Amino acid sequence: MIEMGPNRYGKAAIRLVKLMRDGERHTVRDLTVAVALEGDFGTAHSEGDNASVVATDTMKNTIYAFAPEHLTGAIERFGHALAHHFVDVPQVSAATISIDEHRWVRIPTDDGPSPAAFLRSGDFTRTAEVRATAAGVTTIAGLRDLTVMKSRGSAFVGFPRDRYTTLAETDDRIMATMVTANWRYRASAAGSAGFDYDATFDAVGATLLEVFAEHHSPSVQASIWIMARAILEAHPEIDEVRMVLPNLHHWAVDLTPFGLENQGEIFVATREPHGLIDATVRRGDGAS
Amino acid sequence: MIEMGPNRYGKAAIRLVKLMRDGERHTVRDLTVAVALEGDFGTAHSEGDNASVVATDTMKNTIYAFAPEHLTGAIERFGHALAHHFVDVPQVSAATISIDEHRWVRIPTDDGPSPAAFLRSGDFTRTAEVRATAAGVTTIAGLRDLTVMKSRGSAFVGFPRDRYTTLAETDDRIMATMVTANWRYRASAAGSAGFDYDATFDAVGATLLEVFAEHHSPSVQASIWIMARAILEAHPEIDEVRMVLPNLHHWAVDLTPFGLENQGEIFVATREPHGLIDATVRRGDGAS
Amino acid sequence: MIEMGPNRYGKAAIRLVKLMRDGERHTVRDLTVAVALEGDFGTAHSEGDNASVVATDTMKNTIYAFAPEHLTGAIERFGHALAHHFVDVPQVSAATISIDEHRWVRIPTDDGPSPAAFLRSGDFTRTAEVRATAAGVTTIAGLRDLTVMKSRGSAFVGFPRDRYTTLAETDDRIMATMVTANWRYRASAAGSAGFDYDATFDAVGATLLEVFAEHHSPSVQASIWIMARAILEAHPEIDEVRMVLPNLHHWAVDLTPFGLENQGEIFVATREPHGLIDATVRRGDGAS
Amino acid sequence: MIEMGPNRYGKAAIRLVKLMRDGERHTVRDLTVAVALEGDFGTAHSEGDNASVVATDTMKNTIYAFAPEHLTGAIERFGHALAHHFVDVPQVSAATISIDEHRWVRIPTDDGPSPAAFLRSGDFTRTAEVRATAAGVTTIAGLRDLTVMKSRGSAFVGFPRDRYTTLAETDDRIMATMVTANWRYRASAAGSAGFDYDATFDAVGATLLEVFAEHHSPSVQASIWIMARAILEAHPEIDEVRMVLPNLHHWAVDLTPFGLENQGEIFVATREPHGLIDATVRRGDGAS
Repeated sequence: MIEMGPNRYGKAAIRLVKLMRDGERHTVRDLTVAVALEGDFGTAHSEGDNASVVATDTMKNTIYAFAPEHLTGAIERFGHALAHHFVDVPQVSAATISIDEHRWVRIPTDDGPSPAAFLRSGDFTRTAEVRATAAGVTTIAGLRDLTVMKSRGSAFVGFPRDRYTTLAETDDRIMATMVTANWRYRASAAGSAGFDYDATFDAVGATLLEVFAEHHSPSVQASIWIMARAILEAHPEIDEVRMVLPNLHHWAVDLTPFGLENQGEIFVATREPHGLIDATVRRGDGAS
Repeated sequence: MIEMGPNRYGKAAIRLVKLMRDGERHTVRDLTVAVALEGDFGTAHSEGDNASVVATDTMKNTIYAFAPEHLTGAIERFGHALAHHFVDVPQVSAATISIDEHRWVRIPTDDGPSPAAFLRSGDFTRTAEVRATAAGVTTIAGLRDLTVMKSRGSAFVGFPRDRYTTLAETDDRIMATMVTANWRYRASAAGSAGFDYDATFDAVGATLLEVFAEHHSPSVQASIWIMARAILEAHPEIDEVRMVLPNLHHWAVDLTPFGLENQGEIFVATREPHGLIDATVRRGDGAS
Repeated sequence: MIEMGPNRYGKAAIRLVKLMRDGERHTVRDLTVAVALEGDFGTAHSEGDNASVVATDTMKNTIYAFAPEHLTGAIERFGHALAHHFVDVPQVSAATISIDEHRWVRIPTDDGPSPAAFLRSGDFTRTAEVRATAAGVTTIAGLRDLTVMKSRGSAFVGFPRDRYTTLAETDDRIMATMVTANWRYRASAAGSAGFDYDATFDAVGATLLEVFAEHHSPSVQASIWIMARAILEAHPEIDEVRMVLPNLHHWAVDLTPFGLENQGEIFVATREPHGLIDATVRRGDGAS
Repeated sequence: MIEMGPNRYGKAAIRLVKLMRDGERHTVRDLTVAVALEGDFGTAHSEGDNASVVATDTMKNTIYAFAPEHLTGAIERFGHALAHHFVDVPQVSAATISIDEHRWVRIPTDDGPSPAAFLRSGDFTRTAEVRATAAGVTTIAGLRDLTVMKSRGSAFVGFPRDRYTTLAETDDRIMATMVTANWRYRASAAGSAGFDYDATFDAVGATLLEVFAEHHSPSVQASIWIMARAILEAHPEIDEVRMVLPNLHHWAVDLTPFGLENQGEIFVATREPHGLIDATVRRGDGAS
């Protein structure tokens, strides 16, 4: 017998810009939102009966219609409002709202930061994923596309050698990566009206960057552990941290054919191939 | 207590081209390979001890070193050889090999298909994922980036309307999507020396295209069910089919301001936002 | 004194799909169109006076409004209609219409090619650029993103060696490139009502591919000359051919560390860096 | 007679990272370099004779070999050294060096900016193009991918209306663009040993941003004039400014179907289609 397995559907790449006017001073919010629903959609598949199918166009409309009232603070709270709305639809068992926030910073002028002109910062994208079910809500915050480099304090030694191993050990290499990091908030914190998602995001980001800058890295694997542990230690409201880190290799260029010596100075940056390390660090007490 | 959660690592974006020479007649294989290992890597993270860490550079070397002997047939078989090699490393509990095959077809000439000149076909990318553990091997074949359109035989009616619904019902719309499809082979078939992965890939692809062309689509959800069921019915060696289909909306352009009537003729193709339907269809008997 | 220099403006990335219905048999045209105007727009810049500024939104509307009547044949002819329309605006001295055509081919079924279901071919994109001025119309046809490879018949020897040269001479290398080719039609041909742009495009493309497959390449530079000359010799209606060819290097992998010999069989395909050859070949008689 | 027309060739996408160590304090430079040569390469094309063809691999090597000694200051100076080197090759009549500089900023820590850990800024990419011929050297500096938005002070009124015009006039719209700007330095300034390219780049960028923030925009065309003129007025060492500005449209969302009024608050950000304005502003005295 043939049957439906896991399935979900929704709308992706919904581009929403909200302009908030406080007198002469404007603030701009710029999001890309996706909605995905799971639930009792079997007959939509097998019978072609759309009676249960919330149109993805309706999802898009809902995002825009919710923005005036509900997009007033952190993207996590906007995600909560939307996830609750969609999970309240009877046939929906889980609603997942994924939000990317693109950051616009005020343009500096002689009179100070501009009240109504902005520059889009490409340093990273802030992300959130809120998933609501009958059992409760999961709130994951994060960032991606944060590209960082250490030019000191990274090594890679002591790895096993087999007949296919040619890599030399090194106690001084460039470590470069494009960070994708996600952290799950403890439900008791995430559900509290007073929880400050924005301040927590900033604090986690600052911890991540500072630890990256200052730790000694024996491997990308160890770097994840060290950064994630620092985040968990500093933030009791976080239960779990996941990082996905490509190893963006920088290879020293052999200058000897040109009569030159490369004293750890000249590198070629490469993208293909790249190492890729994906790891989760969490509290072992199972608390959530 | 802070502990490691799920983790894996490996090498991605390994670009491998193999040129096979049969006298004057050449054949070219063009793959992008990724390796991911899971296992007992806890001390690499928490102690910075690399004694268990197969270097990702070694993984890359292994791919190239295996290619002369093991890349002689379907990518699934190359994946098997590599997955077995890596899962045999004591500390490795699971090895996943992901392969994209980029297709080169012979350039037509007056003397027939060229023996040694090729054109890269952009119609789709063939994919395979082989995962080996102590419990056995899972083999998933698939394709992605196959963009198709139906200009007849697609409707969307009968969906629920709430205060956020503005979409009109339609019994005649353009349906366009970029197919990502994956199918899992029954272990008994995939493990058999005589199983013809290439012929099966071609047959599944042909079924998918033919059913897409000929079915009536009441929704993208139903289309997945109809196409996947056809594949399962035609291929007893397949246990499960997953499809991820964006709905690439084509909106009719309002020409009335220009004194023209748009009789289902002029559309704007859009990418943002898009519907996104992800569903798995499988045999319910649990056979594998 | 500060003054305006060269300037142009317009609308880009206008996505237009036209569905033509001949009874049960449909045909789909899928274009991306751009308009660029030059002319007397100085006061728009220096005075902020928009009296001469055809809104780019109007350009977009015009594309859609022209499609029912004027997009009935080759993209070059659609370009002509649009270029004439815009250059007739008094303040416009030159109108350039750039069109990409995305190719959809009929899905094969047991009953033959489908009448109303299509697969988007990714082999290449057909292009056209039509520029109209008071002096006349220039019509350039072309293609891009045609990726081809020769595994025999390519060499690179005899190049100068200086202190920075390390490349070995080779009489047998893989030659791979992604072709961008453009050819300018003689005005007398392009302006003729009976000129068959589609057949000529097909013929030029076939010549390009066949010569690529069969020629011996002493360098990418020479390949451009050989292919372009063949096109000019076969097509008196073409005055000039320009090709831009990256050299997509495939480097032999050193397998000796693994106890293997690489007999011209295993390569790594690279994109960074790449050679880039840009050359125009033309009739020297100045005829046009 | 068939003959060669304009042609050039070179190496592109050369990725160069230089790590400069001043005791504990490191500085990282991250460039993508391209070389293009013009000259007497006719026989390379028509005869397949490579005696004049500087191998593009040699170009790449030269970039790396020059980096230790010549990449010590602004990218313009590195470009000068390379352009002079290549134009000194007898058969070369023009050498163009194009450089993108990817910016890494120091990671902030509790102890101040990190001496050896960096974050890649995605705000913009700095660019330079140096072209050397027997007649002299042209130096163009610039930036790209600088995305900016004004939420006040942008209008578009008074444009002509024809039968294809539907756009409403607006005296208050969001103006958003991704700036590509290039400016040509007067040869006397660019050639001076004491000219400070870095300080000038910073000053031009600051002017561009400040004027963008503070000007009233009657059109994108006028904005280019206003910004470019301000740059020329502030910088006598600059002869010409070119800007290419897409108009990244933000359309107000109609919320009335949901019983809401959109008071200039909720927008959809779009990319297709977009306006595209390309204009050069220059000194009219022809001085250079």
